[in-house]
Amino acid sequence: IIYAITPTYARLVQKAELVRISQTFLHVKNFHWIVVEDSPVKTQLVSELLAQSGLRFTHLHTETPKEHKRKESDPNWLKPRGVEQRNLALQWLRENRELSEEGVVYFADDDNTYSLRLFDEVGAVRFGGKEWGSAEIRSTKRVSVWPVGLVGGLRFERPLVEKGRVVGFYTAWKPNRPFPMDMAGFAIALQLLLANREARFDLLAERGYLESSLLQSLVSIEELEPRADNCTKVLVWHTRSEKPKMKQEELLQKQGLGSDPSIEV
Amino acid sequence: IIYAITPTYARLVQKAELVRISQTFLHVKNFHWIVVEDSPVKTQLVSELLAQSGLRFTHLHTETPKEHKRKESDPNWLKPRGVEQRNLALQWLRENRELSEEGVVYFADDDNTYSLRLFDEVGAVRFGGKEWGSAEIRSTKRVSVWPVGLVGGLRFERPLVEKGRVVGFYTAWKPNRPFPMDMAGFAIALQLLLANREARFDLLAERGYLESSLLQSLVSIEELEPRADNCTKVLVWHTRSEKPKMKQEELLQKQGLGSDPSIEV
Ligand SMILES: O=c1ccn([C@@H]2O[C@H](COP(=O)(O)OP(=O)(O)O)[C@@H](O)[C@H]2O)c(=O)[nH]1
Ligand SMILES: O=c1ccn([C@@H]2O[C@H](COP(=O)(O)OP(=O)(O)O)[C@@H](O)[C@H]2O)c(=O)[nH]1
Ligand SMILES: [Mn+2]
Ligand SMILES: [Mn+2]
Repeated sequence: IIYAITPTYARLVQKAELVRISQTFLHVKNFHWIVVEDSPVKTQLVSELLAQSGLRFTHLHTETPKEHKRKESDPNWLKPRGVEQRNLALQWLRENRELSEEGVVYFADDDNTYSLRLFDEVGAVRFGGKEWGSAEIRSTKRVSVWPVGLVGGLRFERPLVEKGRVVGFYTAWKPNRPFPMDMAGFAIALQLLLANREARFDLLAERGYLESSLLQSLVSIEELEPRADNCTKVLVWHTRSEKPKMKQEELLQKQGLGSDPSIEV
Repeated sequence: IIYAITPTYARLVQKAELVRISQTFLHVKNFHWIVVEDSPVKTQLVSELLAQSGLRFTHLHTETPKEHKRKESDPNWLKPRGVEQRNLALQWLRENRELSEEGVVYFADDDNTYSLRLFDEVGAVRFGGKEWGSAEIRSTKRVSVWPVGLVGGLRFERPLVEKGRVVGFYTAWKPNRPFPMDMAGFAIALQLLLANREARFDLLAERGYLESSLLQSLVSIEELEPRADNCTKVLVWHTRSEKPKMKQEELLQKQGLGSDPSIEV
């Protein structure tokens, strides 16, 4: 099973983002979507969307503590985003899955773009040859890695591979981080997470060190398993949606003529 | 058949956009994608993406005339976008399809978000009851319409429906346009386009009047056929992607150390 962990929060584009990634996930076999809302309750919007998605899913929620929550006026990198949500999903897996179960865990933010071909690579982390059929599979044990497009101020970031081993990273920003990789660039064997029950994301990690805070306790660079043709193919893109302009809506609302709130967007 | 016409142009997010909408379209039965590149040649990126998409497709190209092309510095609304591309697709349909063939034509920009449920509504424009199964279908002849989310400075724009007929539009911007609707909010029976061989988008249409320039010669407001529960459900969103920041890439390129151009993003 591929467990995709998606933190999500209420904003104008939320439903659009969740609809389009859910439709990609709907093509993937043996898929389980763990959606964790950053909110004090499970919202009706997300509940209904999941119920109608056709996907196997788990719906959780936990609100980011106020002092760590980004304000509208903050630049988007100031505060970590989705951290407690991802940790809650890890906790759920530890409470609901056994060491004997096979699986791989991928952190799939709601606004990225995923090629279907990525899930063949993700799936190869820990599965037997049958469904996934790659020769490398049996030797895969811990964490697999691949490039991410449109991230870090670059066309892509990627692990550098020599003779089938990761020997460094192509990245420009804080290259000395232990694992200078974006969240979308790796997947972790479920068993590794179950065996290391303390491994989690650090809410207080310095900017750019969130991925490292989890990976450091799980794997060394030499152990990373390169995918996507030795990390030469981009199969996931760190896209971001523009915040929609609501100028007319705001004008109308001042006159008490805002759009019908019973129509969900 | 649903013919989706998608104009597209080279930019950093192009592949990501095309990948994600292609994966949505891959769920839709009886679907034919007409992709028209705004470029002097068919690019390798789009050619390969289409070949690998698993979709039935037609690949065309035509460059927007220089004097109508938007510059990087222009605001995105200054010039019409995708106009000649959509017209070329209409021409292709007129040259390659017969009046006896059933079909419906939808203009699907590459950056919007489409719920799969939309294609049931689109499909209902002109098809017999079998695959699409709605009672309204047989009476559908010309142009069907529905709401579009996150457009026009509003949460949504939509046709207003009374007793099953369109009687006006909920829209804030230039409400006096003949058809104050976004491109994503309607679909047209193929036969109507084949019977009206001169109907096309006007490259010189005033801002906001592009949709009207085509629809005016095809249909009257009274003839519009409301879909999506009498235009009360949002099934398509006018999303837009942020332009990715390339600060590090530019710095590295100045030093001759830009990212490997052979890795496609
Ligand atoms: O207050 C927030 C902000 C973001 N997110 C989620 O956390 C993930 C990463 O956030 P975002 O995509 O905004 O970060 P970036 O694109 O800057 O990496 C996404 O799935 C968001 O939906 C969240 O749960 N709460
Ligand atoms: O120079 C351009 C700009 C845009 N487009 C395409 O035309 C459609 C509408 O453009 P865009 O989404 O930028 O417009 P908006 O979101 O402002 O409606 C999209 O499919 C684009 O890929 C194009 O072919 N050439
Ligand atoms: Mn993001
Ligand atoms: Mn657009």
